[in-house]
Order: sequence, then structure tokens, then C-alpha cells
Amino acid sequence: MMTRRRVLRGLAAAACSVATTRLAAFQRGTTQPSVSPVRLRERLEALSVYGRPTGGGFEGGVSRVAYSDADVAARKHVMGLMRDAGLQPRIDPAGNIFARREGREPTLEPILFGSHIDSVPEGGNFDGDLGSLSAIEVIEVLDERAYTTRRPLEIVVWAHEESAAFNRGLAGSRIVAGDFVPADLTQTWNGMTRADALRRIGGAPDRITEAAREKGSLHAYLELHIEQGSTLYRQSLQVGVVQGIVAIDGFEAVVRGFANHAGTTPMNERRDALVAAAQLTLAVREIVTSRRGAQVGTVGRLEVFPNSPNVIPGEVRFSIELRDLSPAKLQDLAAAIEARAAQIARDTNTTIELKASRHNPPASADTRVQDVIARAAAGRGLSTLRMPSGAGHDAQMMARLCPMGMIFVPSVNGISHSPRELTTWDDCTRGAEVLLDTVLAIDEDN
Amino acid sequence: MMTRRRVLRGLAAAACSVATTRLAAFQRGTTQPSVSPVRLRERLEALSVYGRPTGGGFEGGVSRVAYSDADVAARKHVMGLMRDAGLQPRIDPAGNIFARREGREPTLEPILFGSHIDSVPEGGNFDGDLGSLSAIEVIEVLDERAYTTRRPLEIVVWAHEESAAFNRGLAGSRIVAGDFVPADLTQTWNGMTRADALRRIGGAPDRITEAAREKGSLHAYLELHIEQGSTLYRQSLQVGVVQGIVAIDGFEAVVRGFANHAGTTPMNERRDALVAAAQLTLAVREIVTSRRGAQVGTVGRLEVFPNSPNVIPGEVRFSIELRDLSPAKLQDLAAAIEARAAQIARDTNTTIELKASRHNPPASADTRVQDVIARAAAGRGLSTLRMPSGAGHDAQMMARLCPMGMIFVPSVNGISHSPRELTTWDDCTRGAEVLLDTVLAIDEDN
Repeated sequence: MMTRRRVLRGLAAAACSVATTRLAAFQRGTTQPSVSPVRLRERLEALSVYGRPTGGGFEGGVSRVAYSDADVAARKHVMGLMRDAGLQPRIDPAGNIFARREGREPTLEPILFGSHIDSVPEGGNFDGDLGSLSAIEVIEVLDERAYTTRRPLEIVVWAHEESAAFNRGLAGSRIVAGDFVPADLTQTWNGMTRADALRRIGGAPDRITEAAREKGSLHAYLELHIEQGSTLYRQSLQVGVVQGIVAIDGFEAVVRGFANHAGTTPMNERRDALVAAAQLTLAVREIVTSRRGAQVGTVGRLEVFPNSPNVIPGEVRFSIELRDLSPAKLQDLAAAIEARAAQIARDTNTTIELKASRHNPPASADTRVQDVIARAAAGRGLSTLRMPSGAGHDAQMMARLCPMGMIFVPSVNGISHSPRELTTWDDCTRGAEVLLDTVLAIDEDN
Repeated sequence: MMTRRRVLRGLAAAACSVATTRLAAFQRGTTQPSVSPVRLRERLEALSVYGRPTGGGFEGGVSRVAYSDADVAARKHVMGLMRDAGLQPRIDPAGNIFARREGREPTLEPILFGSHIDSVPEGGNFDGDLGSLSAIEVIEVLDERAYTTRRPLEIVVWAHEESAAFNRGLAGSRIVAGDFVPADLTQTWNGMTRADALRRIGGAPDRITEAAREKGSLHAYLELHIEQGSTLYRQSLQVGVVQGIVAIDGFEAVVRGFANHAGTTPMNERRDALVAAAQLTLAVREIVTSRRGAQVGTVGRLEVFPNSPNVIPGEVRFSIELRDLSPAKLQDLAAAIEARAAQIARDTNTTIELKASRHNPPASADTRVQDVIARAAAGRGLSTLRMPSGAGHDAQMMARLCPMGMIFVPSVNGISHSPRELTTWDDCTRGAEVLLDTVLAIDEDN
């Protein structure tokens, strides 16, 4: 409790002292401490070769799924960058890469910041990469200024953030947050167990629980990330101050009708599972958009059985995913969807089963950290917007251990999880600068 | 031309003489010539072991896809039955099994009848099997009566009727009808070329064109088959006199939206290909059912890309299949669907491409043969219905060569292409009896 209160007091003070911080840092160098746009860009480009499609360029994006050869190689590359910055990276039992830069008061809890470098299949070059390389960039700038922070700094590259591998993401940060289920180690994917996968990236499944860090053992966690949506881009805003990460309620819908011959079964005798699934798919969109707010609802996966042009679909299985900062609103949406599903089942002479498959509670960003980020951005002359994150991030796991904050920069056209994912080099630089200033502001005050 | 006219004249006369035929046959035995219900049932049960699921019984249906080990073994079994009936089966270059029973006037064109024994995966024990074994049963009855028809009789078990193999059915009869594309032989499926597959069942790909038979070289073609729909069953009717086999127009729909993050993309920024596909799926049903008649329309296959719960579908590909006896009505339906697709694409900010993927013209059953079948059924005291066949059958290929007729018997609950496919033993017997009487009636008159 004491620790927690001290942290909060420190952060509150920091929110008012960004200018002082930058001044203090300035005193240690000849100019305002700042990231190198050229170095950051070069490093993003260099990292992009790991998992690049054969014959492609930077624009072709990257397939660097966790535990793949590309992921293993990219992790080595990034550890090399950490060493170049004078750090000694270590891999924790969960496969996360940590590196510590000592502070003037080594017994204080460290400020942790970073992101991930694994990608979805056919993903882009900014999701995760920007935050990971910007964390190293912050260290580079401090080294160039020969500036030692009061608190120790830790940078991190989280293992296995995307849910492409083992169908569940945030894997490394989840274990650090103490959310570990031993059975997960025997889970198989792509011909390997989770334990094997962890060993591939230097993790230690036998000591996995040792990766957990205690609540209060970190002063704060910060993560710079691309927005992955279009909100900042459409409004020509430069920095998003994340209020929190939305809750996610996922459902698996199973519609059962009756598979029969598409030529011989009269229309009025059919129990067509796809007709019912199509109605429910449209109902999800209709229900989600009928309420005010930023909630979203998606049917992203849908499979038809037996899936033949001349057979009436007998069964359809599909996912329904709802996201909002408010769990109460999600419950309300889910109830409306369930009621509609029951009606559709009656109308189409099918059965529809809805099973909850996922429940992620929302994770709030610390309001004091939000304020520090907002002031850091303002100090750089950047426009800001407080906004929820519709995507999940490792930051939500760290929110269980310490005050958390996230910095968003715009995604051109809101495109992400795609080779066409793009954040301008200027916005990359701005994000890294706000990260630098936020780290220093939080460090200076306590 | 002479031959064709003679055939038609003969069939017209036959339509009025079912009673005479049965009388003539009767004179050669001690009772009305009739099939053996016990033998027919035993043979349907014996055939059902080829492709039966491990540990299952007759009720478990059959997976006897063309060219599979089960198909090869079942074909051997059926050839054994033909030999037991005193016939010499031969396999033509297209893999079809033919057997000829000589007539009193061997130079006359033969009457051909039969069906197929390959099945869909997880199919039933009546689709094709009933017509194939009933053809042998007709020969058995004639043998028992020591009755020699005037015309030669030929029975056939067609190769590869179902479209499960190589994604296209009616393969054996198609080649006999002269519709052969050499490139088909190099088509691969399940790790084998079409040529290899043909060799597996005793066909001769090198001599494939020799399988074609000339127009007018057959006096008539008859096929007994289960209805596979619910029309006869729901109306408690015993025999369907097929008017023709419906035309099929198939389309491949490709909806292109934009795949994006399901958490970060606001609802009003989405270009969700599945939302558009769901709308079009429902429109197909609505348009097809908005017109009077027996036409059907089905979306049976649908695939989503990238098909992940947390990614907005960027592309959806699906099949649209329309069936009716009238090609003009199909064109009208397709035009309405295309217009609606264009509207949906505008509404959802997607593109929708509709490509014709299949066009089967309708195949009419010869009206005189229909009359013979109707009288044969009436002579047995059976109720009848003239009806289209919504399913494709080898008979539609034979309709290109000679007058064609099909006899339908009821499918319990209209279920087919399913282990639950069922036709009562009584209806099986009735169908075989009508086939027998129809063969004799056509043979007696000329």
C-alpha cells in the first residue's frame, strides 16, 4: 500500500512538470534531448527484413508470427541493438526480452517501457515494432546525453503478443502479470507444444512461474503504439492519450439446420443454417450500431458445413466479438443479440447456440500517467485526443501490476494487421519523442 | 432420322399397351412377373458394406466416393451379381459397367437402364444403388420366367455420378454422350489424375473417345431413382414420373471489402465483406421465393478471408446455385440477383463480382416414355405425380442420345446425401416393378 501511494503521488507531481523535466535534460546536453528520426527509421527498416515476403520490400509488410524462424531471428537482431546501446538483455522464462539501465537510485522501482515485435501473418511494419525500437531509441538518447535517470529504466520486448500463435495473444506479458495456467504448456499449435515454442525463443518452461513480477514492483509501464484505427488520422490529430483498453466479450455461435440436397428440397422445406447465420450476422451489426458510443461488434470467422455448392448448409459456426470500455454495455449488447438469435432460430427452423468464448475485462490507463503523456505531447506542440484502445495490448496486463499509460500515433487510413499498415516517419518520431519526455517526466518526480 | 422416327412411333404405341405387355409376360410364367422384394432388399444391404463407416450398420450410410477403394470393391461386387444373372459385364473406356442381355431381334437398338453406385461422402444407401440393383433385378425376373425380350436389353452402372470426385459428376455418362474434353484426363484430385482414377476402375483413358455412343443407337434409356426430395413423401404419393431434369445456373460470388482490425475500426469506417455477403445470401432466398413455381436457389459454399475472430472480413467467396426446368426463369432470377448485388455493393462500400461457373441446360424426359411409366404405375395400382427432378442424373446425358424416362420413388422426409437417406422397402419394390413393366412395355411395342 505504501509503495502504491508513493507511486501515485509521484505521478501526480510529474503531470505538472514536463517542462521542468525537459529543462533538466536540456541542461545535460547541448540541445533539447531528442530522438534521431534517421536512426529510428533505419532501424524500423532493418527490422522489417525478418519475415519479409520473398522478393518483397518494406511495403510488402511482414509475417513474423511468434516462435517462427523470423521471430527468433528478429529477437536476436533486437538484442543486438540493446547491446549496442550498452545494455545486457536477458530473456525471462516466459520468453520476454528485458534490459535494464541502472538509475541513480537503484533501489527504486523501475519504469518499464517497450512493446512487441511478433506480427500477425501478413502484418505490417509498425504494429509493435515502433514501440519496441522507440524504447531502445530512448536509451540511445540518454546515452548520447550521458544522462542517468533517478530510477532504473527497463525496456522490454514482449514475447508472443499477437493471437496468431496458439490462438491467444499477450502471452508473455500475461505470465509476467501472474496469469499463468500450467496446462497451457502442453497446448499444441503448428506441430509444437507451448513449452517447445518457449524453448525456441530462449524461454524456460520449467521455471515459467518465476517470470511473474509482483504488484507494485514497477513504478509505471509505458507503451508507444500505432493506433491501428482511423480516429487520429481522420481528425488529423497527432497523439492519442489512451484512456484504457476496451473489454472484449467473444462468443462462438453454432447454428444447426439440416444439410440436404440443394436441387430436390423445396424452399419452404429447408432448414438452412447459413440463412440463419446471415440473419444473425446482420443483426450483430444492427444491434451494435443502434446504440450511441464507440462500441464495435464483428463476425470475423465463419465456417459452413458441409460447404458444397449443391448442399443446403446444415451447420454454420461463427465468432461474434464485442468491444467497449464498459462491460455493462457489452452485457446489454450480448443480451440483445441472444434475444435476436432465439427469434431467428424460430423463424428459420434451426437451433442457435451462443457460447461465451472469451472475456477480457477492460484495463484502465492511470489518469495521472494520461496527464503526463498529454503534457509531454503539448510540450512538443502536438495535438492530442483522449481515446480508448479498441485493440488489446500488453499494457493491459501491466495495468494489473502498476500505473499504465499508452501513447498512440496515427495509422494512415486506419489500416493495421495488413502489409498496407503505415505510420508516417514524422509521426513515428513524434511518438518516440513523447515516450522519451514521458519517461523523463515520470522519473524526475516522485 | 428414320431410326429416330421409328423409335418415337414405337414408344407412342407402348404408352397404350402396358396391360398387354404384362399379359404377354404373364403368359410365359405362372404368375404376374414380379421382382423379389427379399432379394432386392438383401442386395441393397449387401452393397451397403462397401464404404460403410467402421463399426456402423446399414443405418450409418456409406462413403463410397468414385474411384475410392470402396467404389472399386463395390463395382466388383456388382459385376459378380451381373454374372450370377447370366450376363457378361464389360467395363467401357470411361469406366462404366455395361452388360447386355440378347433379344429375339439382336439387330434392334437396345433398351438401356441402370444407375450408379458411387456416393457422396457420408451419403445414403439408396441414391443410385436402388436403380442399379433394380436393373439387375429386372434381368433376374426375366431369367426366372425364361423370357426373352424382342429388343436387346442393356443394363449399366455408371462411373462417377456424384460430383464429390474431381468436383464434377455424371462423368461416365457424359463421356458416353460424347461430351469429352481431353484436358480433363490431366485434372488432379485427391493426389491422382483423372486418367489414373479411370485406370483404378478398369477404364482406358487412352481409348476414352471409344466410350461415346451414337445418337439413335439406343432405343430408350430408363432410370429408377429415389426422389431425394420431399414432394412425393409429403403428399403420400408412390411414384414420380419425371418430366425432366432442371437446368442449373451456378455462380461464384466474390465480395471484396477491406480486412482491418476488429477492435480499432469504427463501425462506420468498415468495408465488411461478410456483411455484404450475408445481405446477398438473404437476397438470393428472397428473390427465389418471391416468384411462383418450384425453382430453388442455394448458397451452399461460403468462405471468409482471413477468417479470424478479430479481423473484419476482407473477402468472402461463395456459390449461388439456381435450378428450374425453365432456363428463361433462371435468367430472370439471375438478373434480379445481379441487380441486388450491385445495390448491396454500393450500400456496404464493397465490390461484388458474380461469375457464371456452371450452366446445365434442362433435359426433358420423352413425353411418350413418361406416359408408359405412368401407365405401368397405374397398372400396379400406384399413385403418380409428374414432376421435375431437381437433382442431376446420368439420365440427362442419355437424353442427348435417345428418348429418356425416369421413375422416382419417395424419400422419407426428403432426406438424401445423408446417412439418414431412406426409402421404404415397399417403395423400393414398387419402383423396381414399375421399371420392369416399363421395360417390357417399351420392348413389346415398336
